[in-house]
Amino acid sequence: MEKILQQIIDDNKKYAEYGNVATYIPELRKANKNDLGICIVDMNNNIYEAGNCDKKFTIQSVSKPITLALAIMDSGKDKIFSKVGMEPSGDPFNSIMKLETSKPSIPYNPMINAGAIMITSMIKGKNNEDKLNRIMSFFKKLSGNENLSINEEVYMSEKLTGDRNRAMAYLLKGEGVLTENVDEVLDLYFKQCSIEITVRDLARMGVNLASHGVDILTGKRLIDEEVSKIVKTFMVTCGMYDASGEYAINVGIPSKSGVGGGIMGTVPNKMGIGVYGPSLDEKGNSMAGIKVMQGISQQMNLSIF
Amino acid sequence: MEKILQQIIDDNKKYAEYGNVATYIPELRKANKNDLGICIVDMNNNIYEAGNCDKKFTIQSVSKPITLALAIMDSGKDKIFSKVGMEPSGDPFNSIMKLETSKPSIPYNPMINAGAIMITSMIKGKNNEDKLNRIMSFFKKLSGNENLSINEEVYMSEKLTGDRNRAMAYLLKGEGVLTENVDEVLDLYFKQCSIEITVRDLARMGVNLASHGVDILTGKRLIDEEVSKIVKTFMVTCGMYDASGEYAINVGIPSKSGVGGGIMGTVPNKMGIGVYGPSLDEKGNSMAGIKVMQGISQQMNLSIF
Amino acid sequence: MEKILQQIIDDNKKYAEYGNVATYIPELRKANKNDLGICIVDMNNNIYEAGNCDKKFTIQSVSKPITLALAIMDSGKDKIFSKVGMEPSGDPFNSIMKLETSKPSIPYNPMINAGAIMITSMIKGKNNEDKLNRIMSFFKKLSGNENLSINEEVYMSEKLTGDRNRAMAYLLKGEGVLTENVDEVLDLYFKQCSIEITVRDLARMGVNLASHGVDILTGKRLIDEEVSKIVKTFMVTCGMYDASGEYAINVGIPSKSGVGGGIMGTVPNKMGIGVYGPSLDEKGNSMAGIKVMQGISQQMNLSIF
Amino acid sequence: MEKILQQIIDDNKKYAEYGNVATYIPELRKANKNDLGICIVDMNNNIYEAGNCDKKFTIQSVSKPITLALAIMDSGKDKIFSKVGMEPSGDPFNSIMKLETSKPSIPYNPMINAGAIMITSMIKGKNNEDKLNRIMSFFKKLSGNENLSINEEVYMSEKLTGDRNRAMAYLLKGEGVLTENVDEVLDLYFKQCSIEITVRDLARMGVNLASHGVDILTGKRLIDEEVSKIVKTFMVTCGMYDASGEYAINVGIPSKSGVGGGIMGTVPNKMGIGVYGPSLDEKGNSMAGIKVMQGISQQMNLSIF
Repeated sequence: MEKILQQIIDDNKKYAEYGNVATYIPELRKANKNDLGICIVDMNNNIYEAGNCDKKFTIQSVSKPITLALAIMDSGKDKIFSKVGMEPSGDPFNSIMKLETSKPSIPYNPMINAGAIMITSMIKGKNNEDKLNRIMSFFKKLSGNENLSINEEVYMSEKLTGDRNRAMAYLLKGEGVLTENVDEVLDLYFKQCSIEITVRDLARMGVNLASHGVDILTGKRLIDEEVSKIVKTFMVTCGMYDASGEYAINVGIPSKSGVGGGIMGTVPNKMGIGVYGPSLDEKGNSMAGIKVMQGISQQMNLSIF
Repeated sequence: MEKILQQIIDDNKKYAEYGNVATYIPELRKANKNDLGICIVDMNNNIYEAGNCDKKFTIQSVSKPITLALAIMDSGKDKIFSKVGMEPSGDPFNSIMKLETSKPSIPYNPMINAGAIMITSMIKGKNNEDKLNRIMSFFKKLSGNENLSINEEVYMSEKLTGDRNRAMAYLLKGEGVLTENVDEVLDLYFKQCSIEITVRDLARMGVNLASHGVDILTGKRLIDEEVSKIVKTFMVTCGMYDASGEYAINVGIPSKSGVGGGIMGTVPNKMGIGVYGPSLDEKGNSMAGIKVMQGISQQMNLSIF
Repeated sequence: MEKILQQIIDDNKKYAEYGNVATYIPELRKANKNDLGICIVDMNNNIYEAGNCDKKFTIQSVSKPITLALAIMDSGKDKIFSKVGMEPSGDPFNSIMKLETSKPSIPYNPMINAGAIMITSMIKGKNNEDKLNRIMSFFKKLSGNENLSINEEVYMSEKLTGDRNRAMAYLLKGEGVLTENVDEVLDLYFKQCSIEITVRDLARMGVNLASHGVDILTGKRLIDEEVSKIVKTFMVTCGMYDASGEYAINVGIPSKSGVGGGIMGTVPNKMGIGVYGPSLDEKGNSMAGIKVMQGISQQMNLSIF
Repeated sequence: MEKILQQIIDDNKKYAEYGNVATYIPELRKANKNDLGICIVDMNNNIYEAGNCDKKFTIQSVSKPITLALAIMDSGKDKIFSKVGMEPSGDPFNSIMKLETSKPSIPYNPMINAGAIMITSMIKGKNNEDKLNRIMSFFKKLSGNENLSINEEVYMSEKLTGDRNRAMAYLLKGEGVLTENVDEVLDLYFKQCSIEITVRDLARMGVNLASHGVDILTGKRLIDEEVSKIVKTFMVTCGMYDASGEYAINVGIPSKSGVGGGIMGTVPNKMGIGVYGPSLDEKGNSMAGIKVMQGISQQMNLSIF
C-alpha cells in the first residue's frame, strides 16, 4: 500500500511546477512549493504514509467543515441554515456579489468565506476565549492530536491582510445577518484558519467522518450521524471552491481543500485521507494534491458515485 | 416493501397543496395536481410500486443526464466539456446571466437549460431526424420500453413558448459556442423534453445507472462505466436545479427532476427510483416528490454520504 | 472656421492608429481606418466641413435617438417608457445581464441594443414595409436628404451575424415585453442600422435637434419640443455606450455614436455636428472622432455644463 | 417670483405622503415628513424663498459633489480618476456588486457611496483633524455661511450604523485602491455627511457652481472652471442615484440629492436652487422635492437640454 502511495506521489510531484504558493497571506509564501505528502488512515486505524508527511502547515479552509459540525451540534440544523444557505454558488470562495443579489442576503453555503465566518460567529461560548477553547478542543478530539496549536505568525498575517473578509463580515452585519462583534468574530476565524496540522491530522479527522462521527479509536461519538452526513455533502457540492463540480467528477471523494495546501478526504465507511502540497492552482486548490487524490481514487476505486 | 411505499405516498400527498403544476408550458397545466406515484426497481429486477404509477407524463429535464451520457459516448469527455462546464451555478435553470459574466462563455453545466441545449446540439446524426432516432433509441434501450414516444401536444406547446430557450441558443450561437442551426437544435431539444414516460421508465433508467451502465436485464453495457459515474455526479451537484445542495443534504441520492413532475433517482449498486408528482415548488421540483424521496432515503438509509 | 476644423482633423488623425474598424459585422471591416471627416451646420444653415466629409457609411446606433423620437411621437411618452427604462446601465451596449436581474425586465434605456430593438418594435405601421417607409421618411426629413437609402451589403451582413441581437429579442419576447414577431422586428432594426449617410446628414439631423425639433430650413416642426429634449438627454446620459460619463465630462455635447464610425452631436440653440472616423476604441466609439469632438468643444466652448 | 415658488410648494406638498423619512440612519427618523422648503439664489444674489426654508437638516450625499471639487483641486483630475470612474452605474447608491465584477476594481463614479468614500480618502491634510478643517472651510466658503457645523447626533448615528459603508471601504482597502486607514476615512466621511444646512446654503453653493466656480458675492474664484464643469456633469449623469436618467429627462437641471431630504440644483449661468423635503422615495430622493424641481424647471424653462 505505501508503495502505491509513494508511486502516486512520485508521478504527480511534477504538477507543483504549474501552480504557486498562496501569496495573499504573506506568511504562506514561505512554504516549499515542491513539498508533497499523503497519509491514509483506514477504519481499522491502519496508517499509510508517503512523501512529506511530517510537514506542518496551517489548516485554512479545511477547518470550515469541522467548525460547521460543531456549530450544528451547538445550535441545531434549523437555526444554522436560517443564517447560511445550502447551495453551491458557482463563484470564487471570496466572492461578495451573491450576498447582494440573493434574497435573503445570507451566504450561499458554509464553505465560502462569508458562510464560514457566519458559522464561526455561531459557535457557543461565554466569550471569545471560551469559544476558541471549544473550537480547539473539538479539533483536538477529532484529530486525536492533543498538541494542535495556532501558528501565531500566520494568524497575525491573516489579521493584517484580511480586509476582504472584514468587508464580508461588515456586509453581513449591515444586513442584520451577523449579530456578533465583527472584530471578535474575525479574530476567532483567523485563529481557526491558523491551526497548524500535518496530513496525519487531516487523515484522522477524515476517517472519523468516514465512520459517521464515531471515533475509530475510542468508539466514542464525536459528531452526530446526521451532522456527519451534512458535512460530507457540503464537501462534495462545495468542498473544492468553484472547482468542486469538476473534482467530484474526476475524484468522487468528499473533500475539503485549503490555501495552506491541505486536502482532507473522507471515503464513507472506508478511510480518511490527508494530502499536503502548497503549490496552488488559480482557484486555490493544491495543484499536485488534486492529482494525487485523483490517482488514489482511480487506483482504489473510491468514487462514491 | 410496497406497504412502506404506500405509507410514504399517503404521508406526503398533502404537500402537493403547497405547489402548482407548471404553467410556462401551457400543455403542462392539464396535469392533475394531486397525482403522486412511485416505482422502485432493484438490481435483481424486483419492481415495487405505489400510487399513480401508470400515469404518463413528459420527461422534461430528466432527459438531460440521459442525453448527456449519449453525447459523451458520441464525442468523448474532452470535447463535450470544452463546450459545457462542470460546476453548479447557484442560479435558476433558465438563467442567462452567467453566460455573460463567465469566461469562457460556455454554460456552467449540462443540467441547466443552456448546457442541455449545447449537449443536444452535439448528438451525432446525419440530419435532425437521424439524431432524433438515435436519442429515442437510447431512451428506449435504457428504459427497456420500446413504446416510448413523443407527446405531440406538449412538443408543440414548448415550441410555441420556448422564447427564453431560443434566447439562450442564440446567445451561445453569437458567442461561437453553438455551431449548429438554432431552430434545428431547439426542435430536437423540445422533442427530447416531450418524451412521454411513467415512473416505471424512470426507475428502470435509474437502476441501469445504479449498475454503472450495464442493463440489469440483459447484462449488456449501455453506458460506459466512467460516463455513468459522471452522470450521477452531475445529478448530485446540479440535478435538482438551484435546490440541489439542500436536496443532497436531506436526501443524498443522485437524482434529476423535471418540470413535468418526474424525479429519477439512482442509488449506486442498489436501485433506481421513479417518482411523479406534478405539483412543483418555486424552483421547479416536484413538491410532494421531494418529500417522498426524503422519506425513502431515511427509511431505507440510502444516502450515499 | 473651416481652417479651425481642418486643424482639428489634422491634429487628431493619428488617434485612428490606436483603434480598429468594427469586425463583428463583416461588411464594416471594409472601411478605411484612417478616414476622418467633420461637418458642422449652425442654426443659420451655415455649413462648415473638413476631411473626408463625402464618405458614405452606415448610421448604426446613431439611428437610435432618431427612431426613439419617432416612437415617442407615435405612442406617447408614457407607453414608450413602460417598455424601456430611462437609466444609464453602466454596461456595454450589447449586455444582457441587467435584463435578467432588474425588475421589471425591461431594457434599461433606449440607447443599448435591447432598448433600441424594443423602440423599433413600437414604430407604427400597417406592416413591416409600411413601418420601414415611415422610418425612412422620418430620417429623410430630419436630414433634409431625400436620397437616403439602405446599404444592402451591410444589412445582409448584420442579418447573418445578428445572433446576439436575436438573443435579446427572444429574451424580451419570453418576458412578454416584446409582443411583435421577432424576425420582423429585427429585420426592421437591421435595416434602420444600415441606412447610409455622410457627416453632412448627421450634422443636419443634429442641428434640427439643436433647434428643439423645428427644421432650420423650412421652419416646419419635425419633432415635438419635449421629445427633442428627451432625445438630447439620453444622448448625454447614454449616448456614447459605457463611456458616456467620461465623454460628458471631456466634451459636454449631447452626442450619439455608432459602430459605423459616426458621431452625431447637437449643441442646443447653436449647431449640429457630424463626425466620421471608423477606427473604434474598445467600447465601440470612434477613436479619433471623440478626440475631434473634444477639440471642437474646447476651442468653441460648447459644453452645456 | 416668491408667489410662484409658494404655489409650487403648495401644489406638491401632497407627494410627501407617498414616501418615508430615511430610517437606516436612526437619527434621520426624527425629521418632519411634511416639511417642504425651497430657496433660489440667482447670479445677482437675488434670494427667493418659500415653505420651510429655515429648517436645518444634514447634507448627506449632497456633500459628494462639493468634496469631489475639493479633491480634484487637491490632487488633479488624473490622479482622482485613476481611483474612481466616471460612468453612471445603473445600480443603487450603496451597491457593492460592480466593485467586484468590474476591472479595475474602482468605484464606478464619485456619487455612489463607494466612490464618495474614495474621494474623501484623497482630501489632503496633515491628519484627520486637518482634513476635516479643510473640508469644513471649503463648505463654508462655498455656502457663504461661516456658521456651518456638524450635527453630532446624526454623526454618531451614522457611525453606529455604517456597516455597509465599512464593508465597501474594506473591500476597496483589500483591493489596494483605498490606501488610508479605514476607520479614519469613514470618520471623516460620516462627519462630512452630517454637516447641518438649510436650503439657503444649498442654493448658494448651487449658484457658485452656476457661475462656474466664481463666488457671486466676492468675485473670488472658489472652484476651477473645469472642475465646476466636471461636478455639474456628474450631477446630471449620477446625481439622483439610480433615478438620474429619469430626473434628467423630467427636470434637466444638474442636481444632487441626499437622504437627509435635500436637493441642490445648479442652472449654469442662471441660478442655484436648494430644496428640502425629508420624505424619500424608494431610491432615496426627496419625494416632493423632485416634484418641486420639476415644477420649477417647467415653469421657468430651465432644462439645459
